[in-house]
Amino acid sequence: MKKEMQVGIIGYGFMGHWHAEHMPQTKGITVAAVCDVDENKREEASQKGYRSYKDYRELLQDNSVDTVLVSAPNHLHKEMVIEAAKAGKNIICEKPAALNVQEFDEMVRVAGECKVQLEVHQNRRFDADFRCVKEALNNRTLGKVFTIGSRFFGANGLVHDWHRFPEYGGGMIYDWGVHLIDQMLDLNLGKVVSVSANVHNVINPEVDDYFNAMFQFDNGLSYVIETGTYLLYPLPRWYVAGDTGTLIIKSMLDDAELYRSGSHVEKLPDSVLETKAGPTRAMAKRAEEELVKQVLPTGKPEWQMFYENYSAALNGGADLAVTNAQVREVLQLMEAVRLSGRKHASVDLK
Amino acid sequence: MKKEMQVGIIGYGFMGHWHAEHMPQTKGITVAAVCDVDENKREEASQKGYRSYKDYRELLQDNSVDTVLVSAPNHLHKEMVIEAAKAGKNIICEKPAALNVQEFDEMVRVAGECKVQLEVHQNRRFDADFRCVKEALNNRTLGKVFTIGSRFFGANGLVHDWHRFPEYGGGMIYDWGVHLIDQMLDLNLGKVVSVSANVHNVINPEVDDYFNAMFQFDNGLSYVIETGTYLLYPLPRWYVAGDTGTLIIKSMLDDAELYRSGSHVEKLPDSVLETKAGPTRAMAKRAEEELVKQVLPTGKPEWQMFYENYSAALNGGADLAVTNAQVREVLQLMEAVRLSGRKHASVDLK
Repeated sequence: MKKEMQVGIIGYGFMGHWHAEHMPQTKGITVAAVCDVDENKREEASQKGYRSYKDYRELLQDNSVDTVLVSAPNHLHKEMVIEAAKAGKNIICEKPAALNVQEFDEMVRVAGECKVQLEVHQNRRFDADFRCVKEALNNRTLGKVFTIGSRFFGANGLVHDWHRFPEYGGGMIYDWGVHLIDQMLDLNLGKVVSVSANVHNVINPEVDDYFNAMFQFDNGLSYVIETGTYLLYPLPRWYVAGDTGTLIIKSMLDDAELYRSGSHVEKLPDSVLETKAGPTRAMAKRAEEELVKQVLPTGKPEWQMFYENYSAALNGGADLAVTNAQVREVLQLMEAVRLSGRKHASVDLK
Repeated sequence: MKKEMQVGIIGYGFMGHWHAEHMPQTKGITVAAVCDVDENKREEASQKGYRSYKDYRELLQDNSVDTVLVSAPNHLHKEMVIEAAKAGKNIICEKPAALNVQEFDEMVRVAGECKVQLEVHQNRRFDADFRCVKEALNNRTLGKVFTIGSRFFGANGLVHDWHRFPEYGGGMIYDWGVHLIDQMLDLNLGKVVSVSANVHNVINPEVDDYFNAMFQFDNGLSYVIETGTYLLYPLPRWYVAGDTGTLIIKSMLDDAELYRSGSHVEKLPDSVLETKAGPTRAMAKRAEEELVKQVLPTGKPEWQMFYENYSAALNGGADLAVTNAQVREVLQLMEAVRLSGRKHASVDLK
């Protein structure tokens, strides 16, 4: 018989609300209980028909809850996941899974010992823009890709809520870096051999709110991830360049634009003495009529796939979409970005 | 009495023509002779009233020529500059000055021994877009700058003429890298401590036609230089971000756009438990009415300043705008970019 999921959400903040709204859209998943330290939130939860708890340990003692969703601030993930595992609950944990690799290893170990299912909610693998890029790469739409830019620029300045405090696991590397690095690894582009990163607290005194990281792959590809909360002019969310075309996605909400050159790679004269200057030189812009533009619809995010897959895996019918080995590698690269930022030099990842 | 300059141009290709056109616009400079191996070009030069030579050594024996302009392909610079110095001529040499630091050191040594004036034609320091960026940085218009992107994207594919042959000193690092790195150093931003670069031959089989280099400075600034001949969608020529504003110059021909936020850095609530989500979060776009846009006219390139300064220095009234120490540092960084590209790791420059 298929296991129904009775979920208890720990931390009824932004993501807690998000899960409460999205999870029940998948058949077989019910949100049964909510835990939050804030009285107003508990009241809101009660009004919506959830059993509500102040201390997450109370929720773990609720025998009708079989699956726990951890969406508390980052520094609490480790303790809550380990306690939930010991209470025999299956677990979905918000990203970043932990503050570092060591913490995550302990969480995975305990979950394994307790034979519960632990998956980290890397929901942005199911974003429409990312899936469009992934498809283009899998289909080799752009030929041989040599550089990828994954940028996410915000302009509101200060980071929000507990994300601005280092002791709670705040900052943009934890908040968005974890998504952008996870997406990079999910593209299966090869092995990352080094990262060179620049990390700043631009207008947030306590935590990083800007970073720019260049990841070098063993096959020569470079992948740039840049994000910041005080960049007042956006660059495209995606810039993917290959030897037969260039793919642009301007923002997460936009469709992709694929550019190809109409008359590609004309033969140049053999003589090295014929110096032709002017409009035919390499750095000129392509004439509009020489540039073929194709719009690739990006569709909608498919966030429900995460829950469907989690449920299917619980019933033995699927492998988990987000494996703990992948999550561990993302955390490793996040640490490498920080180290590189401190050293002002690249970090080797052989 | 002020020294008049009687110039002999070696290499009447694209840049040879450029100099022949621009030099005489400065008072006291006359183009007297031209040398080129190509018969058609010599004929063209003769028709324009220049004495013309096939072998540059003939031009060096022309006693009425006191200054030599070397605009032959890159691999010939060293020999021509050294021979010109030995012939007692003052010299302007096209960029890149040499294929490597060692060659350049020899050129500088011989010019010094022969007591002639040698300057490398780093004309793009006088470009309008660059001077606008330089002024914004000098005036601290953007507050504390944390990242600069200097990008020049071409879409025509193949590199032109002799620039596609490695034996002639071809490729984009020599052709445009030298300009973009020279501009970076001319901004006096601090000391470069490392560079991480990615270098490709995208559609040119012989030479590099794409590179992306991240330079880290001792004060924490990062400076990205990216250029390629097959990037079908342009990113802005300049992206300069500081803690009080963002400066964009879309292309060399455009004016600068300076963005500031109207209501900057509001205080967030102290409580870490108040999770407000939605439109106020850090990664949201600024509302149009919250964004103050100012257009900074970039004006015109002032390329004649190079010749005026060269002439003034010859008469003892000025220091050379482009010093040989600067040119040497640019060549060092170009070598570091290549090395980093080969290693897929950063190169330390302490």
